[in-house]
Amino acid sequence: MEIAAGLASVAKGFHARGWLLGTSGNLSAVVQREPLRLAMSPSGVDKGELKPEQLLSIDENARIVSAHQGKPSDESLLHIRIVKDRDAGAVLHTHSVWNTILSDLYATEGGVTINGYEMLKGLQGVRTHEHTEFLPIIENSQDMPALAEQVGKTLNEHQAAHGFLLRRHGLYSWGRTLAEAKRHIEILEFLLETMGRTNRRLD
Amino acid sequence: MEIAAGLASVAKGFHARGWLLGTSGNLSAVVQREPLRLAMSPSGVDKGELKPEQLLSIDENARIVSAHQGKPSDESLLHIRIVKDRDAGAVLHTHSVWNTILSDLYATEGGVTINGYEMLKGLQGVRTHEHTEFLPIIENSQDMPALAEQVGKTLNEHQAAHGFLLRRHGLYSWGRTLAEAKRHIEILEFLLETMGRTNRRLD
Amino acid sequence: MEIAAGLASVAKGFHARGWLLGTSGNLSAVVQREPLRLAMSPSGVDKGELKPEQLLSIDENARIVSAHQGKPSDESLLHIRIVKDRDAGAVLHTHSVWNTILSDLYATEGGVTINGYEMLKGLQGVRTHEHTEFLPIIENSQDMPALAEQVGKTLNEHQAAHGFLLRRHGLYSWGRTLAEAKRHIEILEFLLETMGRTNRRLD
Amino acid sequence: MEIAAGLASVAKGFHARGWLLGTSGNLSAVVQREPLRLAMSPSGVDKGELKPEQLLSIDENARIVSAHQGKPSDESLLHIRIVKDRDAGAVLHTHSVWNTILSDLYATEGGVTINGYEMLKGLQGVRTHEHTEFLPIIENSQDMPALAEQVGKTLNEHQAAHGFLLRRHGLYSWGRTLAEAKRHIEILEFLLETMGRTNRRLD
Repeated sequence: MEIAAGLASVAKGFHARGWLLGTSGNLSAVVQREPLRLAMSPSGVDKGELKPEQLLSIDENARIVSAHQGKPSDESLLHIRIVKDRDAGAVLHTHSVWNTILSDLYATEGGVTINGYEMLKGLQGVRTHEHTEFLPIIENSQDMPALAEQVGKTLNEHQAAHGFLLRRHGLYSWGRTLAEAKRHIEILEFLLETMGRTNRRLD
Repeated sequence: MEIAAGLASVAKGFHARGWLLGTSGNLSAVVQREPLRLAMSPSGVDKGELKPEQLLSIDENARIVSAHQGKPSDESLLHIRIVKDRDAGAVLHTHSVWNTILSDLYATEGGVTINGYEMLKGLQGVRTHEHTEFLPIIENSQDMPALAEQVGKTLNEHQAAHGFLLRRHGLYSWGRTLAEAKRHIEILEFLLETMGRTNRRLD
Repeated sequence: MEIAAGLASVAKGFHARGWLLGTSGNLSAVVQREPLRLAMSPSGVDKGELKPEQLLSIDENARIVSAHQGKPSDESLLHIRIVKDRDAGAVLHTHSVWNTILSDLYATEGGVTINGYEMLKGLQGVRTHEHTEFLPIIENSQDMPALAEQVGKTLNEHQAAHGFLLRRHGLYSWGRTLAEAKRHIEILEFLLETMGRTNRRLD
Repeated sequence: MEIAAGLASVAKGFHARGWLLGTSGNLSAVVQREPLRLAMSPSGVDKGELKPEQLLSIDENARIVSAHQGKPSDESLLHIRIVKDRDAGAVLHTHSVWNTILSDLYATEGGVTINGYEMLKGLQGVRTHEHTEFLPIIENSQDMPALAEQVGKTLNEHQAAHGFLLRRHGLYSWGRTLAEAKRHIEILEFLLETMGRTNRRLD
């Protein structure tokens, strides 16, 4: 229940910032590794009103193992892929205005290159602002198994990435803990907004 | 009373986001279909302070049937028209900076065309980001019966639209339930802001 | 005490919106007309933390008549001038980013002309969006008696104005009641932001 | 404990404004002058969740003298330098989008020159908007002793400055009290945003 309360609290905070409007986005955290049990936000729920008891428990095939009537998010397969490939403890997915704009603006370059910002130091394992973070951009799709496979390939190609963007869709990030995942989202959202506003100014 | 509490809660949240400043905007929800009874926000009330007991009950001619002294919003006729033509359970109308700007910027095109965004999937009945939403723009007017007729015509011409804009005035959206109407407003406000900021960047 | 609580509540809300940062801005409301007694925010107080008991009571010469040690805002003379010339019941003064920018951008034109927006209907006495509001801009000064005189002249020249801007300084508006003054500020801030963003986009 | 509660409250408020995202930024206040004891925010803590009991007590060499397991912020040496050179009672450091953008945009000029804004009057000792504030920009570095020395040199060269920027990193300001430091941050953030938005408009 503590994990569920944590996810609900993060959801409420991000909704207030406008990063999870209109029931968009989703959140998960690992409850148990073997066999995998993930606390997952249900589909179509207002994230500003998410209650801990609404979090679903799903297995590694995205099937509900708790007694809920709800439906897990369509994107559960992506969460499971990230948890496995990155050994993540939590995965967060936001839809902000700035991540949506930059996911399209940098699509032809295959990703957003961010470097030279002190804020990068908040990403796990980064020790200096002289770090280059490459945030890959993946074409959006409604075919979730195919998209999960593409996410797996991207994670494999970009081992150092702390997140990725789905084009005209949103941002995914993760962490060993929910607190780390939340920190990563806040940092990446900050950096995308900073680059977006800088880019526009310099045009 | 539950409906009134829901409307008051949505009003407070939207006011905090700056979408209902200066007593602007209005909210309604169907309490009974036959004969029609609509819970309607009163005219000239601070939406950040709206209390459930202030919601008026009106009939299909926008006459107050509750024991209130207040005055229903001038735009009640538009709410009633939408409720009837779309079989809506709730209607919400916001004045945001971005919806105001885009309602003018795209006026000569007759509406805003939005496509290719994942966020569109949150609109009722939409299953893919490869959806094209056309948000019609109607010229603003103080003649409410005439405007209500124009709204009826527009709803008829654009059967698939999930909302419309009044020029230099604001956004209307609706849903089968209050939660769905709230979701639609959040999605459309998000998409209008995203397009507005993108448009400016590309100028 | 009810007036003081109202002022404190408005101060807190406007501070959250970023309109009263850094102890800037000030608020007043008439407690008694004859002789004039004004509840006035003290100088140098964090508006996010303003408590009702901190509101000073001043007379028509801006002298404290309550038992407070504090100092009334330097701009009390402007509040008194507005209360007298407009028969206002409350006067509010905000420092927002957008009002600061527009107060400079339109200074050579002597004011900001706003028309054609539905939001204008929220200004007292305005019945249609086809209204033209002229918001005069006054050069900033630290000579308060001289500035108060200039304010008096401006109010006289622009009898229909619902507010004015001090250049690179901020916005003043007022109302017959505190609720009306708050409504006017929210409307004018909204319109200035809308015009500011439109102007920049069209540049 | 009152100092710690004050710091936690400021942290929470600034985090809500997006000035301390992703555990960035740090806050300190003097508890005792001789020998120096500073209440200092721990490293890597979510500033929206900072609790008073988490504040560390450090000495003039940035060593923890309280019974905490935590680690003081890497930038403690900068706080200590400022406290000594400016006789400050509190030091606050924020990472906002606008201060990050302007710290880079004006780097070649060595700092940001701000003048003619009423808001400047909120800076300690400033009596008129006809004041020129020069906010020096220091190149970012991970070598904290070297950076602390550079900060000392900058403070010495710019005796009148109420803050400084670290390039692509953030803003430092301070005050005789925590309230004054908070006021200075709010004012400088406001002015940087105002200049940033104006600059872009004029491009």
